[in-house]
Amino acid sequence: MPAAAAATTARYDIDGFLKIIGDVPVTTDVQRVRLRSRDYFWYSPVLNKQLHGKSADVVATPRNEADVIRVAAACAKLRIPLTPRGAATGNYGQAVPLEGGVLLDLTNMTAIEWQKPGVIRCEPGLKMNDLDAASRPNGFELRMHPSTKRMATIGGFVGGGSGGIGSVNYGGLREPGNILAARVVTLEETPRVMELRTDAAQKVNRAYGTTGIITALEMPLAPAWPWIDVIVAFDDFFDAMQFGYDVALADGIVKKLLTPMMWPIPQHFNALKAHCPEGKHVIFCMIAEQSVESFKAVLGARGTITFEQPHDDSAGKEPLYEYTWNHTTLQWLKQDRSITYLQCLFPHDRLLESVKQMIEMFPDEVLPHTEFIRFAGKVTCSALPIVRYTTEERLNEIIALHEKNGVFIANPHVVTLEDGTRHKSTGADQLGMKAEADPYGLLNPGKMRTYKPVKS
Amino acid sequence: MPAAAAATTARYDIDGFLKIIGDVPVTTDVQRVRLRSRDYFWYSPVLNKQLHGKSADVVATPRNEADVIRVAAACAKLRIPLTPRGAATGNYGQAVPLEGGVLLDLTNMTAIEWQKPGVIRCEPGLKMNDLDAASRPNGFELRMHPSTKRMATIGGFVGGGSGGIGSVNYGGLREPGNILAARVVTLEETPRVMELRTDAAQKVNRAYGTTGIITALEMPLAPAWPWIDVIVAFDDFFDAMQFGYDVALADGIVKKLLTPMMWPIPQHFNALKAHCPEGKHVIFCMIAEQSVESFKAVLGARGTITFEQPHDDSAGKEPLYEYTWNHTTLQWLKQDRSITYLQCLFPHDRLLESVKQMIEMFPDEVLPHTEFIRFAGKVTCSALPIVRYTTEERLNEIIALHEKNGVFIANPHVVTLEDGTRHKSTGADQLGMKAEADPYGLLNPGKMRTYKPVKS
Repeated sequence: MPAAAAATTARYDIDGFLKIIGDVPVTTDVQRVRLRSRDYFWYSPVLNKQLHGKSADVVATPRNEADVIRVAAACAKLRIPLTPRGAATGNYGQAVPLEGGVLLDLTNMTAIEWQKPGVIRCEPGLKMNDLDAASRPNGFELRMHPSTKRMATIGGFVGGGSGGIGSVNYGGLREPGNILAARVVTLEETPRVMELRTDAAQKVNRAYGTTGIITALEMPLAPAWPWIDVIVAFDDFFDAMQFGYDVALADGIVKKLLTPMMWPIPQHFNALKAHCPEGKHVIFCMIAEQSVESFKAVLGARGTITFEQPHDDSAGKEPLYEYTWNHTTLQWLKQDRSITYLQCLFPHDRLLESVKQMIEMFPDEVLPHTEFIRFAGKVTCSALPIVRYTTEERLNEIIALHEKNGVFIANPHVVTLEDGTRHKSTGADQLGMKAEADPYGLLNPGKMRTYKPVKS
Repeated sequence: MPAAAAATTARYDIDGFLKIIGDVPVTTDVQRVRLRSRDYFWYSPVLNKQLHGKSADVVATPRNEADVIRVAAACAKLRIPLTPRGAATGNYGQAVPLEGGVLLDLTNMTAIEWQKPGVIRCEPGLKMNDLDAASRPNGFELRMHPSTKRMATIGGFVGGGSGGIGSVNYGGLREPGNILAARVVTLEETPRVMELRTDAAQKVNRAYGTTGIITALEMPLAPAWPWIDVIVAFDDFFDAMQFGYDVALADGIVKKLLTPMMWPIPQHFNALKAHCPEGKHVIFCMIAEQSVESFKAVLGARGTITFEQPHDDSAGKEPLYEYTWNHTTLQWLKQDRSITYLQCLFPHDRLLESVKQMIEMFPDEVLPHTEFIRFAGKVTCSALPIVRYTTEERLNEIIALHEKNGVFIANPHVVTLEDGTRHKSTGADQLGMKAEADPYGLLNPGKMRTYKPVKS
């Protein structure tokens, strides 16, 4: 055992832990534990430095809620930190144990408890693509998902928060009605199981697993339209923006994704080179088959359709959405590690002006990649622009200039939950929930920095 | 034959018409022709006077498009006016022949050509309730319908225009994507059949049949959720408004209808007396079963649910929507013929203020009944307030004061198409379409007053 790992292990009574959890599957192999203690935080050069070398001491892989309860009880008793994770596809280091301890890998908890018309209840480790595969025969699919849908779990998505493909219709996970219920295990000597319904379920949304361990989710579904993946190319980026805006506002056109991206971003989309003409700005779209003709009528002669294919995200296929949201960043990073990204929310009442203002403020430094969404019932854009990274100082300056000009930033270059939000705080409910569910402050200590343990 | 009818008949060569149309079913019985020449224009005391006694000379009831073509050719040849109608449930006198002639009753053309996922193509005389009954087994239903859905035809709805139950999601028929295609027969000696797709289909939307005879429609459908009819009662009308607004803006809550109504409007809802407490203001809602719990969470303690039942608009049932849109007016008119109504569109950017302003301007004279809708991608309200009618002069004054204060009015107290629109004009496309489809100006002459026949 390398010296560093031995030193860490010494911090906690891991042997005692292993003894009392019975037959819950675990891994203590240092290499494998280290590997599984990472997520995609390396998109951020800042986090990449800060989280380097952070690792759990042991990975536990519960088979069911009873296993989760055993692990939680053991951690509480022995005061060992616990960090829950799904597929670890997130970018905020939310699956990285800041103080070591137990990594709770929930990817083996994949059971579907039941399905009703438009609702599914399942365990948190169910991959979103498997969820959709199970609900699609009934005519339903997830309302929204991240671009990592084919790898990521539903529990990880809710724990990580935000929205994604589908948010142009439903807004984000935080909107009322987008999480119906969460079942949560507390980190206490005698763990309790709590059912959080409607508003209360928001206490685990984007809490990175720090407010309790999710063991079941009840999610509302959307109609599973036959989707068509479409790329449209434009001479002017603002023609792409205006067209996306028109389609976003056209309530009679059923869509799931509207992603304008400025050249040279599409230059890095190797597999789609033939459909992303040199020098052209593009919008990537998912349009319901029933609306494609109307979509083209709204487009008129403003742009050129370069790609139009039935959407397919089954194994071996590459859906268009894997070039959108934070996969856009990933596609560029595959070729060039010098860039990073931001997460912006533009004001709905001066959307195009605001996007234009940011472009003019950071020419060729912040390259616009916007995502049409609904936010609090209004059409606007979030954005994950590509940032040509120089220094952390300049990155912070760029963030400050966005915020000064009314563009909200959810900073993906900070370790703590609070600093990554638009308002630099938890929801009050989340602090209260943590006091209930994690009195000793053992759920990834340091991640929710404003929490003071109510017991010691 | 009464003298008046004989005089009218003498205007046109009805005998010649009957000879050349072959076996197309017709009625010449004066009583029946007069009865079928009326619609629900009597909601307006002004129209009731102006349209009194207007009647066709003959009713033709085509079985199929071939019959329509024969009737159209005969009318063109003999220069006889033709007025198409569906179930005549409209309120603008759009099914009333202003200059007599042939009334084309399309209610026997009810065939469904085909269904695809989310799309149906059918003849115009299909009742909307029958359309839904045919598409519901596939998981679909109309995106929107008027409150007359159980009697009215899809062709009449498109010809009459506007929106209704469902417009809170999809906007009105005029929004891109809400009418996929219309097939139209022209009124010429040799009638042509035209397929109008996407934007072009708007040429028959709210044209009252004056721009061609619809013989088929291709309509986009919505997912057929299990809907729950809900009534919530409030002490304060603006609590009902604010709650409706909150739900309208909550994109995660699936709904189809949000109708706030001020007391004493619900006093006139006889069958629902037990659920409309004395003195309380109400909101009538249709909420998807999957969203009812979230709907209640948004409501909190602001109001009291007095009614909650699975929606059912099959024969013998009375769905909640038959107390909304212009059925609200009808419910009151059943007991008291002294009132009438308006059709308003409130500005989205100062919605509540604007509604309040109108209430204060016309206390107890214009009673608010609003309808949450999307309009051009934004949540706002249309309204069909109850107006305590005194004189035509005062009615026009009320309309002028609304318009002066930024509330658009689609005036339902005027005979012509143009005067009934928000902008007092046809769309330019509709005038152009009429020149194509009705060169002699025979489609209900006088209804589109700005049209000058291009042939004589």
